[in-house]
Amino acid sequence: MKLSWIQGKSQSSTAANLDYYSQKIKEAAQKNPAIIFLPELMTSDYFAIKQDPANFKLALELDSPEIKEFQNLAKQLKIDLMLPFFEKQSSALFFNSTIHINHQGQIVSHYRKMHIPDDPGFNEKYYFSPGDKGFVVTQCQEAKVGLLICWDQWFPEAARITALKGAEILYYPTAIGWDDNEDPSVYKSQVEAWTTIMRAHAIANNVFVVAVNRTGREGHLNFWGHSFVADPFGKILIQNETEESVNHLDIDLAEIESARRVWPFFRDRRVDAYGDITSKWLS
Amino acid sequence: MKLSWIQGKSQSSTAANLDYYSQKIKEAAQKNPAIIFLPELMTSDYFAIKQDPANFKLALELDSPEIKEFQNLAKQLKIDLMLPFFEKQSSALFFNSTIHINHQGQIVSHYRKMHIPDDPGFNEKYYFSPGDKGFVVTQCQEAKVGLLICWDQWFPEAARITALKGAEILYYPTAIGWDDNEDPSVYKSQVEAWTTIMRAHAIANNVFVVAVNRTGREGHLNFWGHSFVADPFGKILIQNETEESVNHLDIDLAEIESARRVWPFFRDRRVDAYGDITSKWLS
Repeated sequence: MKLSWIQGKSQSSTAANLDYYSQKIKEAAQKNPAIIFLPELMTSDYFAIKQDPANFKLALELDSPEIKEFQNLAKQLKIDLMLPFFEKQSSALFFNSTIHINHQGQIVSHYRKMHIPDDPGFNEKYYFSPGDKGFVVTQCQEAKVGLLICWDQWFPEAARITALKGAEILYYPTAIGWDDNEDPSVYKSQVEAWTTIMRAHAIANNVFVVAVNRTGREGHLNFWGHSFVADPFGKILIQNETEESVNHLDIDLAEIESARRVWPFFRDRRVDAYGDITSKWLS
Repeated sequence: MKLSWIQGKSQSSTAANLDYYSQKIKEAAQKNPAIIFLPELMTSDYFAIKQDPANFKLALELDSPEIKEFQNLAKQLKIDLMLPFFEKQSSALFFNSTIHINHQGQIVSHYRKMHIPDDPGFNEKYYFSPGDKGFVVTQCQEAKVGLLICWDQWFPEAARITALKGAEILYYPTAIGWDDNEDPSVYKSQVEAWTTIMRAHAIANNVFVVAVNRTGREGHLNFWGHSFVADPFGKILIQNETEESVNHLDIDLAEIESARRVWPFFRDRRVDAYGDITSKWLS
């Protein structure tokens, strides 16, 4: 099956971003992928760079005309579309979400980011309520995809539960970048750690990982791209650099079962001894 | 603090192995390390290469004279010694274990491998009962060490619970090798996956990882060495190749807290949503 992903750059306004990603989706669709993956919060600039009440107006409701446009596009192009956006549930609650729009244009799954960061330049706890839908696996035409978002990637628990629910591909739309306020000497090791932890989720669960990052500069953040696909042994099949790009890769889901015959980790999990994982600290 | 580890090669008999590792421990102690780490099942050949009832006689009881020798050695050298061995509890039960002998020669902690593999060349389920002591963190003079063994390294749950119990260093004594019956084209990617998953445990938990593998050929297995130490960002500080060696490294445990300020993952764990991790499968 063919996957496509868009390592995209924000165009400064919601209207411009919607137009930009619509064009990129049409471009990707020319290669007849089964699924098209987009980066985190793709409908706007990465507004969480600072706290500003005015930014809440950037959120979209699930039944907004903007989302409807993408439903029409998925139906027209007959593709499964993974759409990460800033979601307004009501005037009271906002989420960092992904919806899966299937090839008939229907919203079939809806995930709300479970792990919310809050660090200098990434003020997400100000905007987003932590996800209230648990971990979500969605059935595409050709694969089961686990919907996770960015900061979730640092938590093996999220990858594990999503894999237990049957995910064959773990999808991490991301907005991670180098910060001008940090020493450039750490830039390389940050990308390395970010890549390594997701490769490990592929290995531990014998699944594919698709990580799709933003690229381009926004204020003091320089989104680092480096989107990649890893196979069920954690091998990187392809990794972007920092360029804006529409990307394609053929993968073979049968490799999941092959990997599970070589390293049958699920057989040996000590679920009788994992109860402590629901503790915050044990020392 | 200084760590030492011995990437050792089996000497074919228990007597020869005990003598070999005693000599290597004395050699390591000359550099005044705080802790000396040894590889998995270091008291004998890797007998689990096949099923043979005669091999059960290789097991040692906790109060055996052989273990007592190592207690004397740790006391004499004033070091914390991590000793992985084939443990006989009774005629009925055998374990793949590690004990921590402190600088006064006392056995202060005892871990029994929780995850037991069973694959061609690694018939461990035939010999070892799965660990019944849960996950163990032991207090050394200068650090808290999490005791894990080999196959445990593929399970993020084990690393996480051990870290929650306060481990600053996750220690994985290991017996992993290339198998003559496998295609050599996979050798490099096996070492890469093995290294990657443990680096990810360092990253996810902001702790050090010390992996100490056997080296040398035993039958159709060629133990691949590549012992390493990773820092709390998952960066490999040092990695052996396949040589027999006595190794030393100075580490700074303050890097754990620094890493936790940059990437404060523990703050954001969704312990309310992790209950499903105690399931074998959810699909």
